[in-house]
Amino acid sequence: MITIVYTTNNKRLAQEISKILEYYKYDYTLIDIKEFSLSKDVEGYIFLSSTGIAIRKVKEIIKDKLRDPFLIVVNNNYVIPLLSNHIGGGNYIGKILAINLNKEIVYSTATDLKGKVGVDELCRTLFLELPKKKDILRLNKELLERDLELYLPEGWNIKINGYKVSYHDKDYVKVEDVKLKPLKVSVGVGCRRGIESFKIYWAVKKALYLRNIPSWRIDIIGTINLRKREVREGCKRFNREILTFTKEELNEAVKRYNLERSEFVYKHVGTYGVAEPSALLGLESLKIKGKLILKKLRVRGVTVAIASHPTYFI
Amino acid sequence: MITIVYTTNNKRLAQEISKILEYYKYDYTLIDIKEFSLSKDVEGYIFLSSTGIAIRKVKEIIKDKLRDPFLIVVNNNYVIPLLSNHIGGGNYIGKILAINLNKEIVYSTATDLKGKVGVDELCRTLFLELPKKKDILRLNKELLERDLELYLPEGWNIKINGYKVSYHDKDYVKVEDVKLKPLKVSVGVGCRRGIESFKIYWAVKKALYLRNIPSWRIDIIGTINLRKREVREGCKRFNREILTFTKEELNEAVKRYNLERSEFVYKHVGTYGVAEPSALLGLESLKIKGKLILKKLRVRGVTVAIASHPTYFI
Repeated sequence: MITIVYTTNNKRLAQEISKILEYYKYDYTLIDIKEFSLSKDVEGYIFLSSTGIAIRKVKEIIKDKLRDPFLIVVNNNYVIPLLSNHIGGGNYIGKILAINLNKEIVYSTATDLKGKVGVDELCRTLFLELPKKKDILRLNKELLERDLELYLPEGWNIKINGYKVSYHDKDYVKVEDVKLKPLKVSVGVGCRRGIESFKIYWAVKKALYLRNIPSWRIDIIGTINLRKREVREGCKRFNREILTFTKEELNEAVKRYNLERSEFVYKHVGTYGVAEPSALLGLESLKIKGKLILKKLRVRGVTVAIASHPTYFI
Repeated sequence: MITIVYTTNNKRLAQEISKILEYYKYDYTLIDIKEFSLSKDVEGYIFLSSTGIAIRKVKEIIKDKLRDPFLIVVNNNYVIPLLSNHIGGGNYIGKILAINLNKEIVYSTATDLKGKVGVDELCRTLFLELPKKKDILRLNKELLERDLELYLPEGWNIKINGYKVSYHDKDYVKVEDVKLKPLKVSVGVGCRRGIESFKIYWAVKKALYLRNIPSWRIDIIGTINLRKREVREGCKRFNREILTFTKEELNEAVKRYNLERSEFVYKHVGTYGVAEPSALLGLESLKIKGKLILKKLRVRGVTVAIASHPTYFI
């Protein structure tokens, strides 16, 4: 959940920002600063106020840069990520806001200032498990002085500023001496009976785009057994295993993960949801009890959800 | 005292900033972030780090926007005043840094974004006592909607963005319904025997410039009785009363205010200081026990100090 906090004069800007977060399928609440109070389960704060007001309002929850929610200030001219900019996602969400609002983003993190991608940011970008805090600090310090050695699995064709890339035949990523496992990505798909394949393909592509995940990083695709044919055709190009679930299995997952229920879907296929529980059950098949990083995205008769590891931001 | 805190890669920038603060005669300490700890009597922090690091390091002292030290982050591209930007002086010092470092200043305070001068900033600019906090908030809110009525004493020829100026024959300033007393300014001057008048004049002008005080705001000028002739001639154009003090009076003030002692001055005139104690004694003659807002500025054989009210920042 992202909380947008606005002062009286910034209500219109706050509404613009909510539309951007809606487009990117981030959950948010919109609140007048007069009614503001700190609450749990907030992954980030966007304040439309001075930096002083924003910092004073959240100072009680400033604890640990690996766990704190991000804090971004947006005003007429700038987007200023203030706290938890790397792992917390401040720079990432800030960039999305800056691009869409046509404002300047004010980076203050050292690696970004040098045009390099910090190791923690690299893990976000490549969707890897996070290194230990001390390794992040050590490697980011090195990174300011020189380019780091980055070993990628064969086929990961990526260029990233600040890294000398080599390839190996292992299934992990290595930054200098630190090994990092790629996170698993599970995609859940629901759709109308007999829908055209290209609509499924592009809906999944858009879902991946919204979370900045390349399509070759999908590990598994799940759907309801009644739509196996459509989803298999639509996802052919991703070349991944398709798991199917019965309506009972899906309903059980809807309950267990406390997912939003759709009466409309229930009337058609006898389950309260397809995409979200399929994504989570697909992840379970990989032995990971994770969370949704993209809730149901609906595009032209197709619904897509993405699930991944529980600890990862957004 | 201003504390400059730098991370390893920013040592050179930290040194540039210390030279600027030296030029403007602000006391400062320079410290590696590894050795940083919070201390009393700090009027402001300048961090050469990410905003996240800066905020986390000072979060314990974030209490009250009317009293907290300012917090400014400076990096390769920006100067970002984060806390206590108006009354605390963050925007003011930030502006000085931005101009001298040729960087962009990132304002986030609402009035500044609208190109208007907040009431608290107005008080800094015009050197007035501060209104009550609730009056500042109320008037600044109004200011975002419309221009405020500003009544100035006859002869104060000033234009300020966001205010409709009228004149009255009173000796106070009025913003809408709020009356504000001008702060008293006392200048202390020391110099070599027989020094040219223009050197005294320009040294005082420079001292006033460094604290952004127009010369017609001087209330009183003080010096040692042995230099009455030189100072009277040099300060003729300011057209203010010149008070003179004996070396005993000055020595007593040096002791009482715990001022820095100069053996050089002692050898010549028998007192450990002239400009600083003269400024403070001049202020006492106006029934105000204040503090130095500019410590001794030495220019071509002339020393100037400025004293004003005890509560005012810098």
